[in-house]
Amino acid sequence: MQEITYIGDYMDSNESLRETPILPERILLGPGPSMVNPIIMEAMMTPMIGYLDPDFMDIIDEVSTLLGKAYRSSGTSMALTGTGSSGMEAGLSSILEPGDTVIICAYGYFCERMVEMAQRLGANVVPLRSEWGKPFPEESLERELKHHRNVKMVSAIHGETSTGIEQPLNNIAALTEEYETLLMVDAVTTFGGTVIETDGLGIDYIYSATQKCVGAPPGLSPVSLSDRALNSIRSRTQKPFSWYLDLDLITNYWKKPRAYHHTTPVSLIMAVRKSLEMMLKEGLEARSKRHKDNANALIAGLESMGLKPVAPPEHRLAQITPVWIPEGVDDDFVRSTLLNEYNIEIGKGLGDLSGKVWRIGLMGESSKKAHVLALLNGLGDILPNTGFNVNKNTAMRAAEATYTAVPSNI
Amino acid sequence: MQEITYIGDYMDSNESLRETPILPERILLGPGPSMVNPIIMEAMMTPMIGYLDPDFMDIIDEVSTLLGKAYRSSGTSMALTGTGSSGMEAGLSSILEPGDTVIICAYGYFCERMVEMAQRLGANVVPLRSEWGKPFPEESLERELKHHRNVKMVSAIHGETSTGIEQPLNNIAALTEEYETLLMVDAVTTFGGTVIETDGLGIDYIYSATQKCVGAPPGLSPVSLSDRALNSIRSRTQKPFSWYLDLDLITNYWKKPRAYHHTTPVSLIMAVRKSLEMMLKEGLEARSKRHKDNANALIAGLESMGLKPVAPPEHRLAQITPVWIPEGVDDDFVRSTLLNEYNIEIGKGLGDLSGKVWRIGLMGESSKKAHVLALLNGLGDILPNTGFNVNKNTAMRAAEATYTAVPSNI
Repeated sequence: MQEITYIGDYMDSNESLRETPILPERILLGPGPSMVNPIIMEAMMTPMIGYLDPDFMDIIDEVSTLLGKAYRSSGTSMALTGTGSSGMEAGLSSILEPGDTVIICAYGYFCERMVEMAQRLGANVVPLRSEWGKPFPEESLERELKHHRNVKMVSAIHGETSTGIEQPLNNIAALTEEYETLLMVDAVTTFGGTVIETDGLGIDYIYSATQKCVGAPPGLSPVSLSDRALNSIRSRTQKPFSWYLDLDLITNYWKKPRAYHHTTPVSLIMAVRKSLEMMLKEGLEARSKRHKDNANALIAGLESMGLKPVAPPEHRLAQITPVWIPEGVDDDFVRSTLLNEYNIEIGKGLGDLSGKVWRIGLMGESSKKAHVLALLNGLGDILPNTGFNVNKNTAMRAAEATYTAVPSNI
Repeated sequence: MQEITYIGDYMDSNESLRETPILPERILLGPGPSMVNPIIMEAMMTPMIGYLDPDFMDIIDEVSTLLGKAYRSSGTSMALTGTGSSGMEAGLSSILEPGDTVIICAYGYFCERMVEMAQRLGANVVPLRSEWGKPFPEESLERELKHHRNVKMVSAIHGETSTGIEQPLNNIAALTEEYETLLMVDAVTTFGGTVIETDGLGIDYIYSATQKCVGAPPGLSPVSLSDRALNSIRSRTQKPFSWYLDLDLITNYWKKPRAYHHTTPVSLIMAVRKSLEMMLKEGLEARSKRHKDNANALIAGLESMGLKPVAPPEHRLAQITPVWIPEGVDDDFVRSTLLNEYNIEIGKGLGDLSGKVWRIGLMGESSKKAHVLALLNGLGDILPNTGFNVNKNTAMRAAEATYTAVPSNI
């Protein structure tokens, strides 16, 4: 419990306001937030404006259009006021009614979060669990779709960051089309770092977060909703438990004629608008290639040191690379030394993988060659102190060598 | 439906990123967002940092302590990732289980939002409705408390902005203490503009928003939770429907030992930290007086013009003043002329009062004498053009006269 002193004895009148503390400038190579380009930070400095001001409505339209382009979606694209988890809950709670059957493909920590959320909502949840660290075996989905009648929705996570799996979506999407169920996709980690064909795959609801590959500060969840999903929500027999995350009500603000729902977080909207412009200017394919190139360099360096990625090569997520911590190496010591002496953040393992893996993120503004080399340099210095010998220079050369054919990386 | 063009034809490579549009600098006298001091905007520019970084954990502790001082609460004080409505839903969905009885004192638009949220959660909702524009008759609460057994919670709104009522909390708090029920208070509009004795009144859950009297951008909901309420949440028989707004899980991040729940919106946290420092530096009592003084000046000016506030003098909210629109005066014309020609935003009526009132907010950084006079000047110019004659100079002098005994106003 913190000591509470009431105002009066808080500051005497001669004391000046403390300056905003200068937080250390970290190289953020964890699971997010990623680093934010100063141009995007600066966009937040726009003067405050009303959430129904006609000038701000133009901004809302623009953000919706930019999101539609970035998702390659002709549905309703919006930024929810909350983090990626709010996007997950908005989809589940708006689409599912109690008793509705949802099949959740479950192959990692965040898939299990989805299972828990859907269970809390009283849905008939069918978790299709498969081994962590491997892609989801789609044939089991077909079996379940045949077995259950009236499956309302199937959900999957595009990039499961606990294990570093990029789940292919084509086969899952083909099955949901064949069996005429809705498809919800978690793109929290992949959106902005991997091309996603939302219309092309027939995804009905997709959501993400702003602080990973989008390159903006955390606090918003960009989503896109198909007309089919919106119609389904609008024909519910009972209202969703959540008013705050009711996608029907939120759509009524994002589309004309606009109805007040909650006060839009103006500053974050301005940041996301700028980050989407930068994303589309770079190009979705080029951005995807940048993420892949830097991940490949990282993995070459790590493997040269004898560190093994969790995910098999053909299913590796470019955005986050979980690697096994070598036996005998002290997880906390390595991460805290990287943070305190090299100003580099990497992520720790989640759930069953806690203490067993490090998770190295290269997302958005953090996905740069200089960061790959800085991390290999740091690990190369620290690991030998924990009794795990590596050759730092060889590892850095191995990483650099992957770039030779890729002159255009940033 | 917006036209969607995919990247490739979005921008050609010679086209530079458009600059962040310079939005007009509005004088924001609506229901919020209020204006934001540049010092607070600048606090958002701190470099991004991880949500479990030890340096950021110090910031989280500091914000929690500052919030406790501002709420005068020894409970658990936190900033939720969402707007004020998320604070409302977090309290209702975390505290109430399906079938639990909640008495909601209902005397305006936002009280009805609370009723709807609680009904969606399957609670046994007892809405105690009283006339809009008058304070809530507390004797009816005592009748209901006697009549119902096992009332889990009573809720009330401190400042109902649809009508401009400041609801006295003393008698309601005395009743909830006597009948041993939890008390939830909505301080969305009042927090930071009126002194609230959370411990003193025995409030179990109080929530607000950052964009009104706190003076920060929108996107967070500062809350404080008593130990009694936290224990009640922790002894639920079934988990809340909402995972995202589960106050138990969120508390586990804000208090040691910390557990990951969702990614904290770092930039908004930095802004709120600075705004709380400024609030406590000004002093809660001084800040309350400033809001009252400027509201009194506004009302003197409006009444001099023949405009009538909705709320009776002894129960008027300082933060927002709804006034009746004179018969024959065009609501939209006046508000849009104020916006387009004077850069002043005022709010429109909500619910039953739509088209019947204007809502004039003087909150946080917007609560300034210069803004009161700017608004009276604008209305004084515009109203005669709609056939409602007023004497602008007399009205402005009436407003100024209220300050003569108040040399310290800002």
